[in-house]
Amino acid sequence: MKCRLGFTENQGKICRFGIGTCSDLPQKLCGVMAKIQARILKGFRDYLPEDMLARRAMLASVEAVFRKFGFAPLDTPALEYTDVLLGKYGEEGEKLLYRFEDNGGRDVALRYDLTVPLARVVAMNGNLPMPFKRYHIAPVWRAEKPGRGRFREFSQCDADIIGAPGSAAEVDILSVGMAILDALDVKEFTIHVNHRGVFDGLLDGLELYEFEKRAHVVRTIDKLDKIGREKVLHLLSEEVGLDSTGLEIISGFLDIPSGDIDAAESFFASMPKASEAIAALKATFNLAEQAGIASRLKANFAVARGLDYYTGLIYETTLNALPDIGSVMSGGRYDGITDMFGAQAHPAVGISLGVDRLFAALKELGTLQLASTPTQVLVAVFNEDHLSDSFQIAQKLRDAGVHAEVFLGASYRLKKQFRYADRMGIPYIAIQGPDERDEGIVTLRCLKDGQEKKLSVDQIANEI
Amino acid sequence: MKCRLGFTENQGKICRFGIGTCSDLPQKLCGVMAKIQARILKGFRDYLPEDMLARRAMLASVEAVFRKFGFAPLDTPALEYTDVLLGKYGEEGEKLLYRFEDNGGRDVALRYDLTVPLARVVAMNGNLPMPFKRYHIAPVWRAEKPGRGRFREFSQCDADIIGAPGSAAEVDILSVGMAILDALDVKEFTIHVNHRGVFDGLLDGLELYEFEKRAHVVRTIDKLDKIGREKVLHLLSEEVGLDSTGLEIISGFLDIPSGDIDAAESFFASMPKASEAIAALKATFNLAEQAGIASRLKANFAVARGLDYYTGLIYETTLNALPDIGSVMSGGRYDGITDMFGAQAHPAVGISLGVDRLFAALKELGTLQLASTPTQVLVAVFNEDHLSDSFQIAQKLRDAGVHAEVFLGASYRLKKQFRYADRMGIPYIAIQGPDERDEGIVTLRCLKDGQEKKLSVDQIANEI
Repeated sequence: MKCRLGFTENQGKICRFGIGTCSDLPQKLCGVMAKIQARILKGFRDYLPEDMLARRAMLASVEAVFRKFGFAPLDTPALEYTDVLLGKYGEEGEKLLYRFEDNGGRDVALRYDLTVPLARVVAMNGNLPMPFKRYHIAPVWRAEKPGRGRFREFSQCDADIIGAPGSAAEVDILSVGMAILDALDVKEFTIHVNHRGVFDGLLDGLELYEFEKRAHVVRTIDKLDKIGREKVLHLLSEEVGLDSTGLEIISGFLDIPSGDIDAAESFFASMPKASEAIAALKATFNLAEQAGIASRLKANFAVARGLDYYTGLIYETTLNALPDIGSVMSGGRYDGITDMFGAQAHPAVGISLGVDRLFAALKELGTLQLASTPTQVLVAVFNEDHLSDSFQIAQKLRDAGVHAEVFLGASYRLKKQFRYADRMGIPYIAIQGPDERDEGIVTLRCLKDGQEKKLSVDQIANEI
Repeated sequence: MKCRLGFTENQGKICRFGIGTCSDLPQKLCGVMAKIQARILKGFRDYLPEDMLARRAMLASVEAVFRKFGFAPLDTPALEYTDVLLGKYGEEGEKLLYRFEDNGGRDVALRYDLTVPLARVVAMNGNLPMPFKRYHIAPVWRAEKPGRGRFREFSQCDADIIGAPGSAAEVDILSVGMAILDALDVKEFTIHVNHRGVFDGLLDGLELYEFEKRAHVVRTIDKLDKIGREKVLHLLSEEVGLDSTGLEIISGFLDIPSGDIDAAESFFASMPKASEAIAALKATFNLAEQAGIASRLKANFAVARGLDYYTGLIYETTLNALPDIGSVMSGGRYDGITDMFGAQAHPAVGISLGVDRLFAALKELGTLQLASTPTQVLVAVFNEDHLSDSFQIAQKLRDAGVHAEVFLGASYRLKKQFRYADRMGIPYIAIQGPDERDEGIVTLRCLKDGQEKKLSVDQIANEI
C-alpha cells in the first residue's frame, strides 16, 4: 500500500518528511500534504536561469559603475517597524504596505522603498563620514493591483549622496546615471531636468494653496504630452476652476520653449520661489557644461515627479528609441528627509534606476545576451567506467578558466547528452573515447556549426 | 513658528512630505511623525558599507565558482502561499514562519529556506531541461529567538542538482563545494560524509521504530564530541531505555574508526539498510578518489543532520583551524522532495554554505580585505572655481580604470578633505592647484606614507 505521497518504503516506519511514523500520521495531515498545489502568488515572479543570468549581468554593470564613482553598497532588512515607514508615502502608499503583526506582537511591514530605510540608517549612525555615498539594489514590496509590467515584488536600484548640498553633488549623481546608461548600451537618451520650486512657484503665482488643487494642477499638466495643450487648459478651467488670469499664467508657462532656461528666467521674474528654482537649475547646468556632461541633459519645466519629498532638482530619463517605456532613471534632491526621525538634518540627492523597464528596454534593443546556463563546455561521459576521466577533463578546463560541467544525467547515451547541451544552449561539447584517452586528446564539437576538432585539453581553453 | 518637524518655509502651504497643507495637518499626525524613533527590529541587521563590501566580495567568489561548474542562478519570491511551505519543516520549524494574511486575505509566509521554493519551481516548470543545476543566494526569515550569531533574517547560499541520481552528481556537488572553500582561502578543511541509511539501518537494528525515540538516539549520539562515549551510553540507557543488547550495538557502532569504510562494512553486515548505505557511500568515495578530489573527504558515521528530508549522502564541513565555529558547508541527497507537490519525482542533491559562519571565519583568519569605500582616489577640490576641473580629472581617472570620486562636502578646506579621505580609508588623494593646472599635472598623495608625487592624470592610473 502506498501512502498519500506515493511512498511505500517507509510504511510503518518513519515518514520521509520527518513528521512521524507512517502509522502515526493523522490522515488529515497526509491529505493536506498530498493536495498542495505548487503555485506562486499573483504579482510575484520566479526568475528562471535565462532571465536571471541576463538580469545579473545587467546589475553587475550597474554596480561596477556605482563603485567606480565611489558609491558603496548598503543593505537593510526586508522588515521594518511599521511606524518607521508610516507618514512617508502618503495615504495611498500606506494602503499598499504589506503590514502585519509578527509572532512577538510587533507591528511590522515589508520595505516599501529603499529611501526611508536609508534615512533610518543615517539617523541611527550619527558617526557616518559625510558625504555618505551609497547604492542599494534590493527588492521592495507593494500590494498593488498586479498588471502588465506591475508587480508586488520588484527590485529597486538607488544611489544617493547624503550630506552634500548644491550643484556638485547633483552633477555627480547625474554623471553616475549617464555612465550607467552608457555601460548598459541603451543608445541615445535624454535626462529631463526640472526643479521642484518651479511648480511650487507657479502654484504660488496662481495663489492656489490647497493641497488637493495643487496636486490636481500638476497631474493635469503632466498629461500634456498625451492630451495636448488645449485639453490641459480646458481641464484646468473645468476641474480646478482656474479663472482667465490663472489660465493665462499656465498658458505662458506652457509657451516656455523646452530646454530654454533663459526664457524661463524671464517668465518667472515676478514669481520669487520659481526664480530661485531657475537660478539653482542654471547653476547645475553651468557646472554640468563645464564638467563636460551637459549634452544629454535638457531642462524640462513640465517634469513633475509627484508632490512628494523632493525639495530641489528633479529628473526623469527617456530612451530616445523607446519613449513609450516611460522614465528609466529618475530622482532628485530631497534635503530634509533624514530629519524625519528627529536626527540631524542632512542634504540629500539621489537617483533610481527602473530595473524592470531597463531590462525590458535592453531586451527590445537586442543588447541582452541570453543563455540558460553559464556553461561553455559540456564534458560528455563515454560510459560509466570513464566517468572519472570526464571529471578530470572538466577540472582541467576550469583551471584554464573555462566554464565546464560533466554530464550528470542517468543514462550516458551520447544522443541524450547532445540533446541536453542543445536544450541548455551550451556552445561546445567535449568527448573522449578510449582511443582518444590513450592519445591524450579530446574531440571538441561546436554545436552551432557541427565542426569537430581533436585537441588536447590545454588547447581547448585557447579554442574557446 | 516652526512645525513639529522643524520646518518653517512651507508654513501655511504644502507640507514637505506631501501629507497636506500645514494648516490642514492634524496635530496628532505631526506629533506621530516627530516622535518616531529610528530603530531596527531585533534579530535584523543593517549591512553598512564595510561589511557589505567584504560580504559582496565573498559572495562574488562563491558565485564565480558555482558558474564555473555550470550552476545557473535562480531567484524566487520572498513571499509564498503558506500551504506551499507547510509540512516541510516539522512542527518546530512551522512555528518560526513569518506568516500573515495579506491585503487580499491570502494566507502567506516569508520564505523559510531556499529548498522548498526550488521544489515548487521544478514542480511548476515541467519542461526544465534535466539535470537542472541551480544556485540561489538570498535571505530567508525565521522568527527564532535572536542570539549570538543567530538572526531572524539571514542569507542562505545553496547549490542543487535536480534530476541526477547516483555518485556522479554527489562528486560534482562536493567538488563545487571544495572549489568554493579553496577560492575563499579558508585554509585546511574536512568534509565529513555519511549516508542517511547508516543511522536508519542502525535504528532498525535496534528495533526502534518510534519517531521520537529514533530522533532522541540520533541527537544523543550527535553529542559524542562534547560529552564523550560513556555519557552517551549512559543517556541512551537512562533516557531512551536501551537494553544491554542495544547498548552493545551502539557501543560497537561507536568503535568503528572514523574514516574506515571497510570496518563499517563488516559491522553493518547483518543490518541490510545500513549495508546498502555503506555500499553507496563506498561508491561515491571510489569515484571521488578516481576524480582526484577525495583527500579532504572523510567518512564519518556520526554525522546526523537531523531526521529531515535527506534520503542518501549527507555531509558537514569543519574548518581545521576553527572547528568550534560548526559546519560551514552542509547538505546531502534528498530524492523525492520535488514530488511533495504531486509533480514528477526527481532525484536531488544539494549543498548549502553557511554565509554568516564563513564570513566570521574569514574575519578570524584575517583573509578579508576591509574597506568602507570602493574609492581609490579622492579628487580634492581646490576651490569652487576649480570644481569642474576636479570632475574632469575624476572622469579621466575612471576612464583609465581607477575608482575615483570628487569631494562633495560643503566646504573646500583642504584639511576637511583630507579628514574625509582618512575616515573613509581612501588610499590616495589627488589635488590640482592653479599652477599645476597650467602645467597639466596633479599632486598625488598616498595617505598611508604621506608621499607625494607630481604626475599627469594618465600616470596616476599606472601609479595605483
